[in-house]
Amino acid sequence: MAPRILEALSRPTVGHLDPQFLAIMDDVNRRLRTLFGTENRLTFAVSGTGSAAQEASLANVLEPGDTAIIGVNGVFGTRLADMARRMGAEVVEVTAPWGRIVDPDDVIAAHRRTPEARVVALVHAETSTGVHQPLAEVGAHLAGTDTLFVVDAVTSLGGMPVDVDAHHIDVCYSGAQKCIGVPPGVSPITFSERAVTRIRNRRRPCQSWYLDAALLADYVGEGATRKYHHTAPINMMYALHEGLVLIEEEGLEARFRRHREAGDALQRALLERGWELFAQDGYRLPQLTAAILPGGREEGPLRRALLEEHGIEVGGGLGPGAGKLWRIGLMGAGATLENVERLLEAVDALLA
Amino acid sequence: MAPRILEALSRPTVGHLDPQFLAIMDDVNRRLRTLFGTENRLTFAVSGTGSAAQEASLANVLEPGDTAIIGVNGVFGTRLADMARRMGAEVVEVTAPWGRIVDPDDVIAAHRRTPEARVVALVHAETSTGVHQPLAEVGAHLAGTDTLFVVDAVTSLGGMPVDVDAHHIDVCYSGAQKCIGVPPGVSPITFSERAVTRIRNRRRPCQSWYLDAALLADYVGEGATRKYHHTAPINMMYALHEGLVLIEEEGLEARFRRHREAGDALQRALLERGWELFAQDGYRLPQLTAAILPGGREEGPLRRALLEEHGIEVGGGLGPGAGKLWRIGLMGAGATLENVERLLEAVDALLA
Repeated sequence: MAPRILEALSRPTVGHLDPQFLAIMDDVNRRLRTLFGTENRLTFAVSGTGSAAQEASLANVLEPGDTAIIGVNGVFGTRLADMARRMGAEVVEVTAPWGRIVDPDDVIAAHRRTPEARVVALVHAETSTGVHQPLAEVGAHLAGTDTLFVVDAVTSLGGMPVDVDAHHIDVCYSGAQKCIGVPPGVSPITFSERAVTRIRNRRRPCQSWYLDAALLADYVGEGATRKYHHTAPINMMYALHEGLVLIEEEGLEARFRRHREAGDALQRALLERGWELFAQDGYRLPQLTAAILPGGREEGPLRRALLEEHGIEVGGGLGPGAGKLWRIGLMGAGATLENVERLLEAVDALLA
Repeated sequence: MAPRILEALSRPTVGHLDPQFLAIMDDVNRRLRTLFGTENRLTFAVSGTGSAAQEASLANVLEPGDTAIIGVNGVFGTRLADMARRMGAEVVEVTAPWGRIVDPDDVIAAHRRTPEARVVALVHAETSTGVHQPLAEVGAHLAGTDTLFVVDAVTSLGGMPVDVDAHHIDVCYSGAQKCIGVPPGVSPITFSERAVTRIRNRRRPCQSWYLDAALLADYVGEGATRKYHHTAPINMMYALHEGLVLIEEEGLEARFRRHREAGDALQRALLERGWELFAQDGYRLPQLTAAILPGGREEGPLRRALLEEHGIEVGGGLGPGAGKLWRIGLMGAGATLENVERLLEAVDALLA
């Protein structure tokens, strides 16, 4: 975490309707639009971690009985499908093996078979596998239809382009603690005008009061009535604001390049050392590398030793990757060649 | 905010499955049990602000078609009813005018008429009116029935006894930013064994994945499998932990007394100055004073002057209190006689 973010976190807490705080919130929303690549008016931070924004994305646009087409090739697509079912939706899963992209042609074919679907949802950066899902073809296909395009950008926003407007994305959400580089607790989300229209014309209110974008719009929107909804997590918003200022200072292109260079260097070095990359070639996220340890080594004990002896924390495998791979994040302030070097030295020591 | 809380907020962020973090979470849960006055195993902090915990309280125990009896005498009872309806419940409202308690006999009578009700919900400390709702009679009545007792303790926990076990409360939630004195963003909740049994035996899963206590129990519980659910708001949990340590250092009795003395002093002084207290005599919260300005003075301009000229922030009236009253919080580190003096000096200057 950049020191300026932690410093921002500890600023004095003011009220959630304090003019100072409202000005910060407006500025956060403006900066989030730039990051998302969107003109969407309804762009803000959900008062919860990434999974809350994920739930908000579907809860606002789905109603019981609606059909949702969901790409499932890892933990987060699986969760989207689980959430949609809890909301009473009929879920059409478009699956791919973990580690591979969901084929855009399969998604488009599913949509042609069920054009009445209210949403198509895809995970841009699958944190469980390191797969970088292409969005352009599906977005272009859905743009001329009545189906909304929902995209999970938890692990991509701030580390690579998301291009919400260019890809005709209607609802897109993220988290603070990935490439934005802020502690978890607030989560960016954006809704297109047609998503807002859908929300305003719901047959019944959103099942979640806390995440209801129609109510939130009256509090978070610039020029809104600032009607009290809930108490925003003030200090977390200070931190998010500071994170977004840091991003502007660095510049988006420079930041994306830094993430790419660090990830590429790590992935090359691991391949040289006999590790196997879990994600399909050509669709690998630089910011999240899922890599299978060489020689069938069990990952758990080595991961613990990495933390205890070298002070470096990586994730373990999930699903089919459990027990055999590490998930290595190079995100936000952590995405540096120096960190790659540090990790490789530790790896060489541990696997010697 | 106590300086130690802000310092805790800015500690280095670790992972949500880091052993250091899990130890803090366990200690938070243990301390929350003391604060709630409960032995409930399933006691933890929801990853959102108080309204998220409020939604979690009902979403976990209600299913579509269930009946919920809800006491409504202010904003937060109204919101509980709204939330329950969104969940598909039949709501029986037991109302009282804003500023008065919901009569326990009315609640018990409503329950006798609809004994099939799955929950009875009351707001212990109505932040919109300053009313202190008695809980003992309703709790004793419900203890021998199949109906769960849900209590909103957002503005009471940490400032006055809540006594979850003594009052036979099954689900109780709070917020961090009231009497616990921590910035908003995490929210304590506790579930009795019979609430947990209800949750485990639901006919269909909780409508909210993010707030599903059955899933959360596998992550937050001591001795749980620590199964990944969502990423907890790490730094907010540091702050909550520090807040609970401060509470233990002060001692519960001393803390409750401090809140009572500050609130009593303020209320006496306002009455002497011709203000009218909005809450019913005998049922006034010391930590939240809703007071009508003397002589029909419009509250808005004076409240803004209080903030701009004296650096003191109070809330405006809500509902029937809009435009005519202030809601003055004396909570956490702010509940001191010195703060009462400071406010009264400002009031005397502004209303001179």
